[in-house]
Amino acid sequence: MIVEICQRAKAASYEMGKLTADAKNNALCRMANALEANAEKILAANKADVDAAKAKGLKASLLDRLALDQKKIQGMAKDMREVSVLPDPIGAILGTWTRPNGLIISQVRVPLGVIAVIYESRPNVTADSVGICIKSGNAVILRGGSDALNSNVAIGEVLRDALSLTNVPVDAIQVVNSPDRKDAEELMQMRQYVDVLIPRGGADLIKTVVETSRIPVIETGTGNCHVYVEEDADLEKATPIVVNSKCQRPGTCNAAEKLLVNSKIAERYLPMVIAALRAQGVEVRGDEETKKIIPDVKAASEEDWYTEYLDMIIGVKVVNDLGQAIAHINKYGTHHSDAIITADFDKAMRFIREVDSAAVYWNASTRFTDGNQFGLGAEIGISTQKLHARGPMSVQHLTTTKYVVLGSGQIRA
Amino acid sequence: MIVEICQRAKAASYEMGKLTADAKNNALCRMANALEANAEKILAANKADVDAAKAKGLKASLLDRLALDQKKIQGMAKDMREVSVLPDPIGAILGTWTRPNGLIISQVRVPLGVIAVIYESRPNVTADSVGICIKSGNAVILRGGSDALNSNVAIGEVLRDALSLTNVPVDAIQVVNSPDRKDAEELMQMRQYVDVLIPRGGADLIKTVVETSRIPVIETGTGNCHVYVEEDADLEKATPIVVNSKCQRPGTCNAAEKLLVNSKIAERYLPMVIAALRAQGVEVRGDEETKKIIPDVKAASEEDWYTEYLDMIIGVKVVNDLGQAIAHINKYGTHHSDAIITADFDKAMRFIREVDSAAVYWNASTRFTDGNQFGLGAEIGISTQKLHARGPMSVQHLTTTKYVVLGSGQIRA
Repeated sequence: MIVEICQRAKAASYEMGKLTADAKNNALCRMANALEANAEKILAANKADVDAAKAKGLKASLLDRLALDQKKIQGMAKDMREVSVLPDPIGAILGTWTRPNGLIISQVRVPLGVIAVIYESRPNVTADSVGICIKSGNAVILRGGSDALNSNVAIGEVLRDALSLTNVPVDAIQVVNSPDRKDAEELMQMRQYVDVLIPRGGADLIKTVVETSRIPVIETGTGNCHVYVEEDADLEKATPIVVNSKCQRPGTCNAAEKLLVNSKIAERYLPMVIAALRAQGVEVRGDEETKKIIPDVKAASEEDWYTEYLDMIIGVKVVNDLGQAIAHINKYGTHHSDAIITADFDKAMRFIREVDSAAVYWNASTRFTDGNQFGLGAEIGISTQKLHARGPMSVQHLTTTKYVVLGSGQIRA
Repeated sequence: MIVEICQRAKAASYEMGKLTADAKNNALCRMANALEANAEKILAANKADVDAAKAKGLKASLLDRLALDQKKIQGMAKDMREVSVLPDPIGAILGTWTRPNGLIISQVRVPLGVIAVIYESRPNVTADSVGICIKSGNAVILRGGSDALNSNVAIGEVLRDALSLTNVPVDAIQVVNSPDRKDAEELMQMRQYVDVLIPRGGADLIKTVVETSRIPVIETGTGNCHVYVEEDADLEKATPIVVNSKCQRPGTCNAAEKLLVNSKIAERYLPMVIAALRAQGVEVRGDEETKKIIPDVKAASEEDWYTEYLDMIIGVKVVNDLGQAIAHINKYGTHHSDAIITADFDKAMRFIREVDSAAVYWNASTRFTDGNQFGLGAEIGISTQKLHARGPMSVQHLTTTKYVVLGSGQIRA
């Protein structure tokens, strides 16, 4: 069954590659309308999921992500319309050159083909992934969490029905309608049909996918992000950046999890910044130096420095200099988003150059690492690996290129 | 031991990222000189490998790839000097834009970090990989075939000694000096330290790596390439292209393995082209239609259509039209390089659009898929996957990007 899903997606992907931008955008708008028009059907399916999840005692934060309402469905439709008006990446010619033998070579942007997305019980990810994948000319295979199965199947039906009135093949959307773990494992072996696999979710999901998949994976999401405050930082600016990075939405991957402070200002600055964090309800865990200055902080363990809390907790460490800050971030971080607060250009440039992360900030909150905030449009995740795409992955990152070579009988000597 | 090699490489990679283009180019020239100056040492080590390989009965074609001589060493040095004069890809700013909130965002090209290369018993790949990886600012871990162990260790020592006189850290080159399969398997688990793994070699090696590695892999090499001759093709041009694609170097991945001929010209053209192929010593395997016209060709099996011969053999099939040719190529091919011979622009454009391969040709030999032939410079392989790099992978493809965000206290609302 999984193999048939993959084969249908592959066949559809070849049709997708021929579509005009208008055909894809029209389909996106029709799908947006269909989501709104079929809200009751989707909500009924979602209610079944939510009821079952409640009965088995799913915790509140997960229920919150699982549950849909009219407003969330309108949001899904709105996001799809926003994707429809983004520039079409397909067919762009990245370069054309002529070789001495007269061959004319172009590098042309084309869809990836078939994208599989494995995610948790968040039904909005279903619509969201469809929008970005269709826009970029790809077929998509969706395998959401089993708690959201009814919701995902309903959303998939609504979207496929909408496609049946367009030039986009219905089979460009495939929902794996089985909660069986084995089916997910089988899907991850389908290298012959699936061009890329994107896991969207927590560290455990991503780890499982990375270890199981034979399809190329783009790793997304884990963010153990740092803010480093240098001795010359404007402390009036520094504190709002630290607080915003930590507290504006602590459950996201671009939220700061660690604060590093230069030892020369630690005695003056730590009381200020820790008071500001605590005023927001943040639990502070500090190293020995921090505890010398603010004795009532909890002691941070070695494991803390590696941890992405995704919660109102922050680890605080005093470092001797910029070099130690950079070394700490490269060792313990997840290469996602890290910021330096300093008034010194040379120090900022060194930090930017030497911190090995997808996004490096000077005097700004780490919370800006996001497709929309960067001006790239909707994103399917934030890549923390270096291959293919790094940072927010938007429509243009779900493409590849081909070389087109025009000749007049050239042969190789 | 493997973990230490990986840790040293990682530490060196952070130093590599800071180097100027001059520092890397100087090191490349010194390494080229050192290869020539230490040719006797390398040849002595290589002789030990060749003698052992002969004693255990390695076949002639593999011995040929294993054996070095003065000329091959000069070739390695020359290639390294050529890489030194290529443009430096690192630090290039791919774009800079200002967001409404005043954040200035740039996307900057940076090295990948640590690249591991797993390859067969071809000692020239050692020097070759070092050249491309150092040029692109990466540290490299080399794990060649066990038959070439002495050669690889000697080349590694010569190159590391040369680096000790430069600003490039010696540890940027790591040779795995163990023939143990377990060490290779351990290396493939080192996701924490190694950013990308590139297998260079035959289909079996690549399959093993894809199945074993937890490090992101760039798949290279397998080429079941096609030439399709349309009914309106200029047959005077077509035959040299077919013969060149097949025969100019049949052991390479961009050599044609299959010939497709439109049924409307099959009766006229097959006798011509098969005679021309046979005149070069090519064994022809045909489908039923081909056998009707040229009865003494060997019958091709279903498996033949999937096979990369890497030899003087070609599969010939008669197809009814362009659509059937495209479907055959997408089904049986390896998405490497495929050509259409036609006088018709629309047909060529359809072929180019619908054939799902790294390189698509109109009226030219498939043998041009190569970094140097494309004008991209030396290559580390030809990617047949869609992620990260597709087609010849040159210095610029061994890089990634980071987002640099310059602010003045921005926080997210």
